[in-house]
Parts: sequence; structure tokens; C-alpha cells
Amino acid sequence: MLSDQDIFDAHRGGKLATTSRRPLETTLDLSLAYTPGVARVCEAIHEDPSLAREFTWTGNTVAVISDGTAVLGLGDIGPTAALPVMEGKAQLFQRFAGLNAVPIVLDTTDVDELFHSIVRLAPSFGAINLEDISAPRCFELERRLIDALNIPVMHDDQHGTAIVITAALRNACEITDRSLRDLRVVISGAGAAGVATARMLIDAGVRHITMVDSRGIIHAGREPLSPIKRELAALTNEEGRTGGIEDALRGADTFIGVSRAHISEDQLQLMAPDPFLFSLANPTPEIDYDLAVRYGSVVATGRSDLPNQINNVLAFPGIFRGALEAGATRITPAMKLAASRAIAEVAHSHLDRDHIVPSPLDPQVAPTVAAAVKAAAINKS
Amino acid sequence: MLSDQDIFDAHRGGKLATTSRRPLETTLDLSLAYTPGVARVCEAIHEDPSLAREFTWTGNTVAVISDGTAVLGLGDIGPTAALPVMEGKAQLFQRFAGLNAVPIVLDTTDVDELFHSIVRLAPSFGAINLEDISAPRCFELERRLIDALNIPVMHDDQHGTAIVITAALRNACEITDRSLRDLRVVISGAGAAGVATARMLIDAGVRHITMVDSRGIIHAGREPLSPIKRELAALTNEEGRTGGIEDALRGADTFIGVSRAHISEDQLQLMAPDPFLFSLANPTPEIDYDLAVRYGSVVATGRSDLPNQINNVLAFPGIFRGALEAGATRITPAMKLAASRAIAEVAHSHLDRDHIVPSPLDPQVAPTVAAAVKAAAINKS
Repeated sequence: MLSDQDIFDAHRGGKLATTSRRPLETTLDLSLAYTPGVARVCEAIHEDPSLAREFTWTGNTVAVISDGTAVLGLGDIGPTAALPVMEGKAQLFQRFAGLNAVPIVLDTTDVDELFHSIVRLAPSFGAINLEDISAPRCFELERRLIDALNIPVMHDDQHGTAIVITAALRNACEITDRSLRDLRVVISGAGAAGVATARMLIDAGVRHITMVDSRGIIHAGREPLSPIKRELAALTNEEGRTGGIEDALRGADTFIGVSRAHISEDQLQLMAPDPFLFSLANPTPEIDYDLAVRYGSVVATGRSDLPNQINNVLAFPGIFRGALEAGATRITPAMKLAASRAIAEVAHSHLDRDHIVPSPLDPQVAPTVAAAVKAAAINKS
Repeated sequence: MLSDQDIFDAHRGGKLATTSRRPLETTLDLSLAYTPGVARVCEAIHEDPSLAREFTWTGNTVAVISDGTAVLGLGDIGPTAALPVMEGKAQLFQRFAGLNAVPIVLDTTDVDELFHSIVRLAPSFGAINLEDISAPRCFELERRLIDALNIPVMHDDQHGTAIVITAALRNACEITDRSLRDLRVVISGAGAAGVATARMLIDAGVRHITMVDSRGIIHAGREPLSPIKRELAALTNEEGRTGGIEDALRGADTFIGVSRAHISEDQLQLMAPDPFLFSLANPTPEIDYDLAVRYGSVVATGRSDLPNQINNVLAFPGIFRGALEAGATRITPAMKLAASRAIAEVAHSHLDRDHIVPSPLDPQVAPTVAAAVKAAAINKS
């Protein structure tokens, strides 16, 4: 159990610092780093802006940007209260991928204002990690930024989660001798993580997905449907199921919970035998853990104190590192799939039903992911 | 002479880095800095936003923000090419005041867009150093930001320069037994530095100032006059002089050049005997240095290879440090005057005509300035 004392002590004075990469002790040091020397570098970049990647910190610096509308389990707490999460995320970029990262919280929730603010500050950074921005605004914002900017932009709550889930599902199949193609997947939750997971699983070869939100199964005949959910209705639920979570679970062999739902034992019994049960709600999983291990062949949660933690930190440091090293201008589906394969592969050395993903502290993960993402970026271009 | 090789080597990979202030080696470390521990800190700040100063890095973090329109001697080179200067400035904040600083360049030159962008990202930082933004836009932008935000905002090209000039002028008076009240000052240049210097010298007690821009002496009858210059015309030139630089210099005992003007020997001869000659244009001072030392009783330039360098680094690190330590919501005229007095005092230990300001590397400067600014901030409130 964490004590408040320890938590606040760990935050006092902030968790992050900026440092100079070279000494500034002499007049010569100052002349090289600042005036008059710096003018030469400015002139060179003015002539060829691509040199900024090499001669400024942008080549290995990520902005972690949030509007504070969907912070952890806390919801819409605003930009200032969201800062400790963004600072923590910046630390993780540094710790796991050796990247610089700057927490930026924006005091607006208007998509247009967010878009313009981020476009304007984009030259300051090499890549943008969107964080804790509520759905459905996150979808439009990310899409518009990807279209407008020539640096990698990724909303981690969508894709980081989807990538790690996909990696975990690959390994769950591996140890149970199943195939992604044949899984019958129910995704509970159609927010940022649910939507991205559905899309990515389809990219990874999953053919049977039923999505359930707070109003039940998403199907083409349901009214009203947001544009995103209309798109999902077309991509999923090929049987045209309607109804609630029970109608979705009947016969399914995989449950992925990224929602506030609660799944009872009676509902679990509707599923096919030995299902995969990924109940990722934090801190309270959708399925009681003891129940899940009784019914499931492979069980995963979002919790660090239980086996098989689906933790984004397995994905984002290596993804951004690989994208920056490749000089990629965007993070493509191929790069995300490469990341998920790399995460799955790192777990292979001690794969069993309680180790389908690597530990968040495994030092091999980020370099392996970075190398795979970089290779995918370069092959693509 | 700096070699290109050395300069570019000093910039390769960037000059700045972010680091974690605490180890992230164990699951416990991660739980304290990130989930689930961080949620407690977010909740606390959500209840009381003032806690952000204590439990995020904002309490000692400055944003160095530019649109790249007035960079060093290079002019309007745009945001990307301006980055090396902003990174260098961030290094100086760290080196001299122990503050974190983040370079932010914005891809717009529209004052309204700059204003809104900066207001939105302000919760990410504890203070804002505006940098290399061209006049007259810098005046409106700074004023609007100071009004809108409750954190310190200062355009360093204005006030940093003005503060160091004022400090230098105090000490020039000290060693020549003159008084600020009786000086007859000509300021050549009515850009960011010239305007702020005129205002600050008035705050410091100087009564006789004549300002000259590229169109000659600024006086109330000149048409057209921008709002800023109209204000200056009312505050300066009590004799109502008109004409050009020669009409301004006649009988003056202090020249402050922050312009692209060139002052000839004939023009110098119009001045009162033994004038103060501060020709701060970089890299080429308004007055040839050899000429200046022949005519002037005290000579200052902007160059690091000559005595009496008027260098903003004497001011901004300590000013922001003091303002942040005091929890000040703005940087008041009293705080700026306190800074200029503190800079002047640090030089007193070895004051002579070639040492009217401390060396930029003098480790006493920033702490002394910070203490003085902090005291002035607290007395004010």
C-alpha cells in the first residue's frame, strides 16, 4: 500500500528537470552554445530546416500533450491537475527510451483550439504524444494533427493500449494454440482504447469482433450512432448481433474490457470454454480476478500487482524512439503492428499463462520495439 | 575565432535534455511517480490548484517562447531556425539560476494567435520568458499576457536589456561622481530594448532622455507616431528637440545605442565632454570601439570580447528565480529596479571604468539578483 507521505514526497519540487548536455563553464562554452556561435546554426537551419533534427533537441524530444479531460480513472480534472501524470509520462520516456519529453497541458477543451495550439507549437518538438484527451474529441484531434503535421503524432490512450493488447493476445493464442483469425472477441467499451483496439485487431487479422458500449452492442441499425461508431459497426459484428453484453458474450472466447462495466459469473458462463479474459479497468477490473482465473485460460488486467499487466509503457517509449530514429513523419499501422509483434517476442523467453507480456521494467522491451518500429518505418517509405 | 566545426559539434543532438529527478528502478518507484500513486497528487491539485507549484515542476520551470521574428542579429528567421537560441537560453536558465527551462517556438506571427496559444499552454509552466519577438508586436503581446495570466511574464529583449543598462549606468555614475537625475541621455533605437530602457531609466530617476529612431528624434509633433512612440514622446524630450541624431547628441553626456545606427567622430564631438558611450549593437557597435574609448569616460558594448559587456544573462536568471521563489504573479517595475541595483552592487567589489558590470560568469550575480527580486516581490504584495 502506498502512503500519501511517500507519494507526495516523490512529487515535491516536481519529478522532471532540464539539464544542459554540455558544460557551460567558460566564455568559450557560452560563445559556442549561445551568442555569437549559435547564429551559425540558426542560419544553417534557416537554409535547410531538416537540420533542426540534428542540431537541436527536437530530434529526440517528445511533447506529452493533454487537455486534462480524461485523466487515468479521474476523468475531466483540467490541465493543471493533469500535470503530474504528464510529468510522470515524460519521466517514463526518458527512463525507458532515453528520449527527452516535455509535459504540456493546454487550457482549452475545444478541438479546434487544441488543434491550432498544437500545430503552432509543433516546431518545438520532434514528436507528439497526445494523452488523456476524452473521446470522441481525441479521434478528430489526432486525425487532424496527423494530416497537418510532418512529425509523428500518436494518442497513446488509443494506440499504446491497442498495441499492448494485441501483443498479449498474440501470446495468449501462442500458448493455447489458437489463432487470431479464429478468435471471437468481445470488446467492452468504445472509448479511446476500445476503438483503437478494434481497429488494430482487425489490422492484425482478427475477423470476429463485437463491440459493446454503455448502450449495448454496436450495430449498424442502432440510432443514433456517432461517425466513429458507425464506422465500427461496419467493421465489426458481422453476425449483426443486437442487444446487451450478454448477447455479445454468448459463445465468445475473448473478452477485452476497457470500460466501467461489471461482468458477473452468470455472464461469464455464456462464453465459450477457457476464454481469454482481459479485464483492464483500473483499479477495479470488469471481472473479479478470482473469478476470472477460475473461468479463463489466460487472464490479464491493468494492475501492476497482478500477472499480465497490460501497461502502455511497454509500447510508447520504443514506438516514439523508433519513429524518431527513422525520421518518420507519421506512425503507420505497419509500425504499430511491428511494435505489437516485438512486445510479444520479448515475452517469448519465458512465456506462460502468467507471462504473456514482458515486465514493464524489462530493459529489452523498448530497444526491441524501437528497432522493429524503425525497420517498419524505413521499409514503408 | 570560433570554428564552424566546434559550433556544430556543440549543437549536435541538441544542447538540452530532460531528466528524471528521482530513480525509476523498481515497481514501487513507478507506482509512486506514475499510476496508481500519481492520482492522489492529481486529486489534491484538482482541489487546490496552488499545490501545482509544490508538487509539479512548474514551481521552478520557465518557458522560453519565441516566434522567431527578431532573432539575435538575424532578424525574422522563423520558429524552427530560432530554436538553437531558445535552447541556449534554456541552458543559461539552468546554468545560472538552477531553473528548468523549455524552449517553445510558435509557428505564427499573429499577435492574437500568439496570445491565445501562450495563454492556453501557460498552465504547463511557472513563468514565461518571451524572446526574440519583433517590435512593435512584442509590446502588445507582453502587455496582454501580463494582464491575462497570473504567472510572471517578461520579454527579455526589452526588460533584461533595460535592467543591465540601468545597472551599468548606475555604476558609470558612481565612478564619475555623476547622478542619474542629471544625465542627458540619448537612446538610439526605439525597438524592444530602446523602449524598455527609456521607461526603466525614467523609473530609475533619469529626467532627460531623447530618443532617436530611423526617422530621427521622437517628438510629439512628428507624424505618424505609433501608440508606443506617442507615449515615449510624452515621457521624453522635454526640450522638444526635433531633427536627427546630431540634434539629439548636441550637449548630451550619455549615448545608449540599441540600433543599427553608425555614429561618426564628428557626431561624437557634438556631445558634452567625457560622455558615457554604450554602443550595444552586435556584432558591430554603433561607435567604433577605439574611437569610443578616446572620447568616452565609460564605454560599454554588447560584445563578450570587450570590457563592460551589457549581457542579459546578468539579469534574467536571477529575476525569474526570484519571482518564482516569491510566488510572484508578475514582474513589477520595483522588482526590475531591485534587479538592476543588485547587478550594480555585485560589480562594486572591483569597480572601475572597465568593470561597471559583473562578468557573465560571476557566480554571485544570479543569487544576488534573485534575493533582491524576491524581497521586492514580497514587499510589494
